[in-house]
Amino acid sequence: MLIDGSILIGRRSVRRDQSFQAIEAATGKSLGQAFGEASAEDVAEACALADTAFTAFSNLPPEARASFLEALADAIVAIGDVLIMTAMSETGLPRARLEGERGRTCGQLRMFATELRKGEWLDVTIDPVRPERVPPRGDLRRMNVALGPVAVFGASNFPLAFSVAGGDTASALAAGCPVVVKGHPAHPGTGELVARAILSVVDARGLAEGVFSFLPGTSNDLGAALVADPRIKAVGFTGSRAGGLALAAVAAARDQPIPVYAEMSSINPVILLPGALASDAEALGSGFVGSLTLGAGQFCTNPGVVIAIDGPDLDRFATAAAEAIAGIEPPVMLTSGIHSSYCSGVAALETNPAVRVIARGQAMPVAARCVAALFETAAADFLADGTLGQEVFGAASVLVRCADFKAMARVVAGLEGQLTATVHMSAADSDAAAILMPLLRTKAGRVLANGWPTGVEVCPAMVHGGPFPSTSDGRSTSVGTLAIGRFLRPVCYQDIPETLLPAALQTINPWNLPRTIDGRREVQR
Amino acid sequence: MLIDGSILIGRRSVRRDQSFQAIEAATGKSLGQAFGEASAEDVAEACALADTAFTAFSNLPPEARASFLEALADAIVAIGDVLIMTAMSETGLPRARLEGERGRTCGQLRMFATELRKGEWLDVTIDPVRPERVPPRGDLRRMNVALGPVAVFGASNFPLAFSVAGGDTASALAAGCPVVVKGHPAHPGTGELVARAILSVVDARGLAEGVFSFLPGTSNDLGAALVADPRIKAVGFTGSRAGGLALAAVAAARDQPIPVYAEMSSINPVILLPGALASDAEALGSGFVGSLTLGAGQFCTNPGVVIAIDGPDLDRFATAAAEAIAGIEPPVMLTSGIHSSYCSGVAALETNPAVRVIARGQAMPVAARCVAALFETAAADFLADGTLGQEVFGAASVLVRCADFKAMARVVAGLEGQLTATVHMSAADSDAAAILMPLLRTKAGRVLANGWPTGVEVCPAMVHGGPFPSTSDGRSTSVGTLAIGRFLRPVCYQDIPETLLPAALQTINPWNLPRTIDGRREVQR
Repeated sequence: MLIDGSILIGRRSVRRDQSFQAIEAATGKSLGQAFGEASAEDVAEACALADTAFTAFSNLPPEARASFLEALADAIVAIGDVLIMTAMSETGLPRARLEGERGRTCGQLRMFATELRKGEWLDVTIDPVRPERVPPRGDLRRMNVALGPVAVFGASNFPLAFSVAGGDTASALAAGCPVVVKGHPAHPGTGELVARAILSVVDARGLAEGVFSFLPGTSNDLGAALVADPRIKAVGFTGSRAGGLALAAVAAARDQPIPVYAEMSSINPVILLPGALASDAEALGSGFVGSLTLGAGQFCTNPGVVIAIDGPDLDRFATAAAEAIAGIEPPVMLTSGIHSSYCSGVAALETNPAVRVIARGQAMPVAARCVAALFETAAADFLADGTLGQEVFGAASVLVRCADFKAMARVVAGLEGQLTATVHMSAADSDAAAILMPLLRTKAGRVLANGWPTGVEVCPAMVHGGPFPSTSDGRSTSVGTLAIGRFLRPVCYQDIPETLLPAALQTINPWNLPRTIDGRREVQR
Repeated sequence: MLIDGSILIGRRSVRRDQSFQAIEAATGKSLGQAFGEASAEDVAEACALADTAFTAFSNLPPEARASFLEALADAIVAIGDVLIMTAMSETGLPRARLEGERGRTCGQLRMFATELRKGEWLDVTIDPVRPERVPPRGDLRRMNVALGPVAVFGASNFPLAFSVAGGDTASALAAGCPVVVKGHPAHPGTGELVARAILSVVDARGLAEGVFSFLPGTSNDLGAALVADPRIKAVGFTGSRAGGLALAAVAAARDQPIPVYAEMSSINPVILLPGALASDAEALGSGFVGSLTLGAGQFCTNPGVVIAIDGPDLDRFATAAAEAIAGIEPPVMLTSGIHSSYCSGVAALETNPAVRVIARGQAMPVAARCVAALFETAAADFLADGTLGQEVFGAASVLVRCADFKAMARVVAGLEGQLTATVHMSAADSDAAAILMPLLRTKAGRVLANGWPTGVEVCPAMVHGGPFPSTSDGRSTSVGTLAIGRFLRPVCYQDIPETLLPAALQTINPWNLPRTIDGRREVQR
């Protein structure tokens, strides 16, 4: 499949000045392919097409959108190894990781296909007419409908699973929303390959032009123009806090403000309770470093702070962690920009007088490698200096030494909203864990025990979201079946003649949907 | 029960300078009772108590909160006729309306009790451990949890059903959120009576102090301080667009922004299709005026614009409407402020060169009466002048005469987001209606046929919400069982030992909740 740096608007490939290059992550050198930057006119055209496509696409039977999503998965697989090779070059991520990510991406598309067929997402609720009541009650029928065209901003760190055909795109398309993707400049060739695959399926299935468009580019103005376009009705974003807040501000300043689902930053606290430390300090130390350094620490769920009570057991943990860090060959980071942000974040911690270095990874004379860093500080210092609780994107973490459980609880209470919160505990820790549980659930979208936060399962029970500022909307998840709900709103139909009702609400139930009638759930056929 | 103008913070009655008076709606004169204005310290204290009460209250078994809500309904009934008498004086609304509204208020509380017992609101979703998978999947369990303390701003036009113990309070308490009510100064005595009833139940049941507080007052600063308090996690509001937008701005500017569910304004378009007009013009005219003038037009669902194709049938409609308006004795409006806003809104329409008066109600020499007003304008003028599409709160409406169906569709397409959209149609109109349906559902939360938008049923299928600016969050409803969802967020528990899991997620299912396990809904016992 061709990569030529085009902007892909509905059926058209638009060639603009080839103003930016695909960069090889490992070397920082150009990969030889230049890419066009989408213009304000391209944004307007893509949004107009999406708006035109909306009604037909959102009214498709669930089966039609389900098989469309499955065809997308097939088309992504059919791109073949060039997709993996391109992504490897552009991101520096290893083959196994990218093959796994491709599987996850296709799995997500297929999961939403299954979800569409189940039909719970429509939440069909019918309150039949009660003519005998005084006053009479009308016939009231409620269902979820798609919000409208959605702008999706892919992430640098998941060039497939959180990018052009990632979770935001899959859930928005599942909901019936056309999607306009702002392509991430860190993997433009990967993005173009996936976008072309999506467009080939849109075309082959005769879906309306505008169901999908792809706008690559590097400028913040491009993203802002997309969010500001009045035809866009919601935004999905995964990236930095500054980026997410900037887009949220644009969305809030529109004549019609729209929801922004921005996943922005998280330091994913890991709490080591005394019993767990006493019995497992060494294993915890090496397990922690495995999670910290996975993918060069470039995960939203990377553990950026460890909270524990000071003492010899914690020293054992720190020693084991330091040894594990020393054994790791520093991996390539995604981009030189991420690498330099990581280096300044680490430098700020290194030079903070309240912080001591526990361990640094092997020094590498090669640019763009992530030399892991583990620091420590005291609870009072962590609480006093908000910068110590800010995300450093990459394999950097701060161990907070607390005098006692009370100090630990104060540190936890002082945390911002998080994607995850982890507790390591043994049977001896259950009283302390019971105290922490209600607090942790106010802080995070996912609370886990005796594991590590990296590795986000794609399944119905998953919540990959959390209170602000980990996301801009703590009532949502960007991973798992529940993610479709972000792009839906309820509509009630009152006394509408059967022939004018959407199929989902018709009494004969042509789509065989699960329904709640007069407050009672129908038994499924 | 006593009305003494106190601020009610947890268990304490606080007496402040009695700075404002309860006003008799019919006369504009003081009713003799003065009320204290809550201070910034009162806000902070109420929010601190609510925060302290949150964990225990949100973790109560559904049955405990359900019976609490039922006890609230009983306590409101037990206030007796003084509640109705006080509300009649303060609002000018007639007895029958207020008795009906009390029934609705208690009905809402009981409806949420039933909803709590059903348990669907928790959305318990369990994905069991898969140790054999590579990599193994952990045990993942998701449920909805309460957001935290909620600030509720009652509406002037429903002194019971959208006020101190109204739908926002009922759904927030149902969700497990403590509530701090900013009392509306248009019915301070009514508010105090209901607040005291709630507090007596909180006390009698031994619930934590702070589950409910009542902060009466007149100043915008009071409301802003409440929304800005970091312990408040969501806001429910029914009122003006200016008020709702101001609170939304305060919420967005917080260190941790929070959701604001503001129901703000709507002109509830009514579309008269030609077949319906041909067969029923006169009945439509009088039916329309019945909806327009109900409760002096002081409903969020009041029909503020009628859209139809020009011609003799429409003239018949207009004549019938004018006759109906002439027959109505102008009712008292809620407050002198609402009355004077209504008068200026009507005056602006009267003096607009593109607008003609079809009918005015009987002139009344008594202040604060709503003299109904029906205007007409041309489609092009309506589209050209945005002020013609702004809500005039009260019995005022604009008939938009369109040259043909295309012009009518353009007028509909130009409308802002609405709570409701109504189509009158006969069998002859089904093609036109079929074209309008997809458009109307992008514009409104409720689409209805051959009826009138006033009269909002409280039931599972209801959506009383709609795209901005009818509300600040078009993904929600403030009426019906779905309203509880506004105050919940999902949390995932991963590999948490059974004894540390919330009861709702324990394998033994002690609350006998409906659950989805491994993507399949369990059959209910």
